[in-house]
Amino acid sequence: MFDSANLEHRVTREDYQRAAPLLREALLNAQFDLHERGRFPVLILIAGVEGAGKGETVNLLNEWMDPRHIHTYAFPEPSDEERERPPMWRYWRALPPKGRIGIFFGAWHTQPIVQRVQGAIGSGAFSDAIGEILRFERMLADEGVLLLKYWFHLSEAQQKQRLKELEKDPKTRWRVTDLEWRYFKLYRKFVKVCEPFLRKTSTGEAPWIVVPGADPHYRALSVGRHLLAAMRERLDEKPARRLPDRNPPLLPSADKMNVLRALKLDQPLTRDQYRKELETWQGRLNLLSRHPRFRSLSVVAVFEGNDAAGKGGAVRRVTQALDARSYFNVSVAAPTEEERAQPYLWRFWRHLPRHGRFVIFDRSWYGRVLVERVEGFCSEADWMRAYGEINDFEEQLARHGVVLAKFWLAIGKQEQLRRFRAREKIAFKRFKITDEDGRNRRKWGAYEGAVCDMVDRTSTAVAPWTLVEANNKYHARIKVLRTLCHALERGLERTKAARA
Amino acid sequence: MFDSANLEHRVTREDYQRAAPLLREALLNAQFDLHERGRFPVLILIAGVEGAGKGETVNLLNEWMDPRHIHTYAFPEPSDEERERPPMWRYWRALPPKGRIGIFFGAWHTQPIVQRVQGAIGSGAFSDAIGEILRFERMLADEGVLLLKYWFHLSEAQQKQRLKELEKDPKTRWRVTDLEWRYFKLYRKFVKVCEPFLRKTSTGEAPWIVVPGADPHYRALSVGRHLLAAMRERLDEKPARRLPDRNPPLLPSADKMNVLRALKLDQPLTRDQYRKELETWQGRLNLLSRHPRFRSLSVVAVFEGNDAAGKGGAVRRVTQALDARSYFNVSVAAPTEEERAQPYLWRFWRHLPRHGRFVIFDRSWYGRVLVERVEGFCSEADWMRAYGEINDFEEQLARHGVVLAKFWLAIGKQEQLRRFRAREKIAFKRFKITDEDGRNRRKWGAYEGAVCDMVDRTSTAVAPWTLVEANNKYHARIKVLRTLCHALERGLERTKAARA
Repeated sequence: MFDSANLEHRVTREDYQRAAPLLREALLNAQFDLHERGRFPVLILIAGVEGAGKGETVNLLNEWMDPRHIHTYAFPEPSDEERERPPMWRYWRALPPKGRIGIFFGAWHTQPIVQRVQGAIGSGAFSDAIGEILRFERMLADEGVLLLKYWFHLSEAQQKQRLKELEKDPKTRWRVTDLEWRYFKLYRKFVKVCEPFLRKTSTGEAPWIVVPGADPHYRALSVGRHLLAAMRERLDEKPARRLPDRNPPLLPSADKMNVLRALKLDQPLTRDQYRKELETWQGRLNLLSRHPRFRSLSVVAVFEGNDAAGKGGAVRRVTQALDARSYFNVSVAAPTEEERAQPYLWRFWRHLPRHGRFVIFDRSWYGRVLVERVEGFCSEADWMRAYGEINDFEEQLARHGVVLAKFWLAIGKQEQLRRFRAREKIAFKRFKITDEDGRNRRKWGAYEGAVCDMVDRTSTAVAPWTLVEANNKYHARIKVLRTLCHALERGLERTKAARA
Repeated sequence: MFDSANLEHRVTREDYQRAAPLLREALLNAQFDLHERGRFPVLILIAGVEGAGKGETVNLLNEWMDPRHIHTYAFPEPSDEERERPPMWRYWRALPPKGRIGIFFGAWHTQPIVQRVQGAIGSGAFSDAIGEILRFERMLADEGVLLLKYWFHLSEAQQKQRLKELEKDPKTRWRVTDLEWRYFKLYRKFVKVCEPFLRKTSTGEAPWIVVPGADPHYRALSVGRHLLAAMRERLDEKPARRLPDRNPPLLPSADKMNVLRALKLDQPLTRDQYRKELETWQGRLNLLSRHPRFRSLSVVAVFEGNDAAGKGGAVRRVTQALDARSYFNVSVAAPTEEERAQPYLWRFWRHLPRHGRFVIFDRSWYGRVLVERVEGFCSEADWMRAYGEINDFEEQLARHGVVLAKFWLAIGKQEQLRRFRAREKIAFKRFKITDEDGRNRRKWGAYEGAVCDMVDRTSTAVAPWTLVEANNKYHARIKVLRTLCHALERGLERTKAARA
C-alpha cells in the first residue's frame, strides 16, 4: 500500500513556484463555484504519520483558498458535552454545510487506530469499527458529501532522518522530545495496523489518497491538484435527472397478514382501571427519573403512529410524570435551511440529550421511510438506504448507553375517522386537522406497507419497536408508560453492572 | 413589594376546577396562534423563593399547553464549553426562536442574587449586575421578545409552615434536610437582597409579576391568566407600520473634519520593509498563539472597512501565522432562517470561540450601524439602540478575558476606484465585484458619517477601534498584525496577573 509512497518524490523549487500560483487560482475558482452553487459540501480528512506535513498542508489549503469559507477542526480531548453523547456526535456537529469546505484534522479513524496500536482493542472490535466507518462514509457519499481522505506517509527511514535533522538544528531541537522517539519506536506497529485499515476503508466513493510527505513541494502540489480535480469533476457534472418513483414496490405478501393486522387494536381498559394504572406508572417513571444513576444516562423516546392515533396525548402522559427541566420535546416538522444543508440525520443528532435528560421526538428520523417514501418526497434509493443508516444511528445510541424507546401507535381506519370528526367539534383541537389528513387516509394501504417494512427492518435487539394498540387510548397510554419504565429500569441496571 | 403577596390568597377547589379547563383551552389557542404566525418568541422566567411552587408551575404550564412547542431549561452547573464563554452565552444559546415558548427556570438573575446573599459580591458589583440585566432585558424587549418574569413568593411564616408540614408527613419527610432549614435561616437576608433587586429590574417592558405561592390553585390560575392576557394582547395587536427612515440624520459637524479624514491614508512602507516586518510580526503572533497561557484565553478579531480596503488580504496575513486548527473564520452574510428567528446579536454569540482559539469576523455585528443604517434596512430606533447593545456585548467579552481587536480598514475614494478596476482584470478576484459596490460608492458620504459615529460610540476602553490607513496595503497588514500581537500580549499579561 505504501510502496510507491516510500519512493523519493521530489518537485524542484522552480517547478513549484511556476505551478503553485496557477493551482491556487484554479482552486479559488473552484471554491467560488462551490460557494455560489451550494450543491454539496466538501469534507477533507487529514490523517497519517507524525511529521509528514499534515499541519502544514492544512495551513497551506487555508492560505491558497479563501479561508473565510473553510472550517478547520481538530479533535482534541472531548468536552463534557461531547462525552455525554455517542462518540460520533462531535463529528456530526462539525460537518460542513453545502457550499462549504470542512477540514477535519484527525477524525473518526483516529480512535480505532490508536486503540488498536496500543492493544486496547482486539481484532474483533477493530473490524467492527471499520465496518461502522464504512457505513458512515457511505452515508456521507450518498448524501452528496464530497469526501476526500488524505493519508500522509513517511517511510521509516524518512521518519528517522526527519527527527535527526530537527535535533541537529538548535532552532527546532525543542520539537523532538522523548515522546517523539517513543512514537517512532511504534512506527512498524503503527504501519501494520494502518495498512489493512486503509485497504479496508478505501472505497469507490471515498478512497484513501496516500500522500508521500517527505518533500513539501511535492505533497503540496499533489494534494492541491487532487483536490482541484475532485472538486472540478463534481462541480462540472450535470445533476442526474431524478426519476420520480411515486409508487415504490412493497414487499409482496402471500396473504393479507402483517404485523399491524396481527394487532388486536381494541384492548380493554376502563376509565377507572386507567386512572389507577396511570398513577402507578407515572409515579414509577417519576421515581426512575430521579434515580441517582440516571445522572449518567439519557433517554430518547420516539413517537410515530397513524394520524389521530393519540401521540400527543401519550407524550403528555409521559411528560406529566417528569420534571419539566428534565425533558425536551422535539416536534419534527419541515427541516430548516441550516438542516437542509446537511445530511438527513444531522437534524436528529443535534437534539441528542445530555445525561440526566429525556428527549421526546414527536415524529422522527423514520419520516424518511414513512411519509417521504409513500409520498415520493425522496427517491427509492434514498429511503432504501435509510433503514441501514437508522440502524447504525440507533446502535450508536444504544452502545453509548442511551435508553431508546420507539412507539408506533396504531388505530383502525374507522376509529381514525371517528376521531377526525370529533376533533372538528373541539375548539382547541381544531389545529390538529390539516389537509394532509385526508390524503393520508386515501393512501392507507401504502402507509400500512411502509410501516410493516419499517418494523421488519428496524426493530433490532438494541432498538426494538413497541407496537401500541391505540383504539383505546387508555390502553395505549399505559402501555407506553409501562414500556418506558421497563426500558429505563433495564438501562439503570446496565449502569449498575457497568460500575460493578 | 411583597405586602400583597404576604396576604392569604386562596382559590377553592371548585372554583379552580371550573376555571382551569377554560383557561387551558384559551392558552392552547394562544399558543397555536403564536406558532402559526411566528412573529415573536415568548420567554418566561421563573424565579423566587424555595417551595413557592416554581417547579410545579413549570410542569403545569407544560401540561396545559402543547409541550412540543415549549422548551424548558434549567441552568445547573455550567459545562466546560459554557465556562469558556462569557456567562451570558448559555442563556443566548437557549433563547426560544420566534413562534415558540421558552421557560427559563432560574436565569441571569440567579447568580447576582445568590452571590450578594452569600456576601461574595459588594453593593457596587451588585448594582453593576442590575444595570447589565436591565440593558439585556431592554434589548430582548426591543427585539420583540415577549419577556414574562414571575417571582414566586412565600412569607416567612408560610415558608416555616411548609417545612413543618413536609416534615410531619412520612411520605415527604425526605424533602426536608438540614440544608432546607439552613436556607430558611437565610430567608430575611434573601428577601432583603431580592426586594430592591426586583424593584430595580422591574421595567415597563418587563415588570416582575410577584406570585403568592402558598395556594396551588391560586398561583396556577394567576400565572395562567397573566400569561394568557400577555400573549393575547401581543398577538392581537396590529403591527405598527414602520415608517421608512432612509436618510437618518447624521451628527451635525461644524467643520469637515472627522476621525476618518484626520487619517493619513497613504503611509509609507516599501515592499522590502514589508517583507521583513511581515516575518517579524507573523513569527511573533505564531509564538503568542502557542503560549501555554493562551490555552485559557481566546481571541475575537473583527474586520470592517471600505469595500476593497483589503480586509481579506489582512485576514489572510493573520491566519498565515496561525495553525489552521486554532482559528475559525466567520464570514458575515445574510442571516439564516434560524438566525432570523432570534435577536440580532444571536448569530454572533453562537460563534464565540472556546479557549485557545481565534475567531475572525469578516464583517460583524457592526453591520447594523453601517450598511443597515445607511441603506435603511432597519429603523433608526434599531440602529440607535445597537450602539449600546454592542458595547454591552463587547464588555462581556472583555470581562471574560476575551482578547478583542476591532479593525476599520480605510481607503480613499480614488484608491477604491483604482482597485475595483484592477480587480476586473484578475480572474480569481472577479467574484469580489458585486452590484453593491457601485451603490456603496454613491453613498460614500453617508457611510463616512456612519463610520465616524460608530467609532465615536463604540470605541471604548475595553474594546477600542483600530483605524487602519490602508491605501498602502503593506502598511495596513503590518499595523493589523502589530496591533493584534500587542493586544494578545496584554491579554496574556492579564492572565498572568490573574493567576498570581
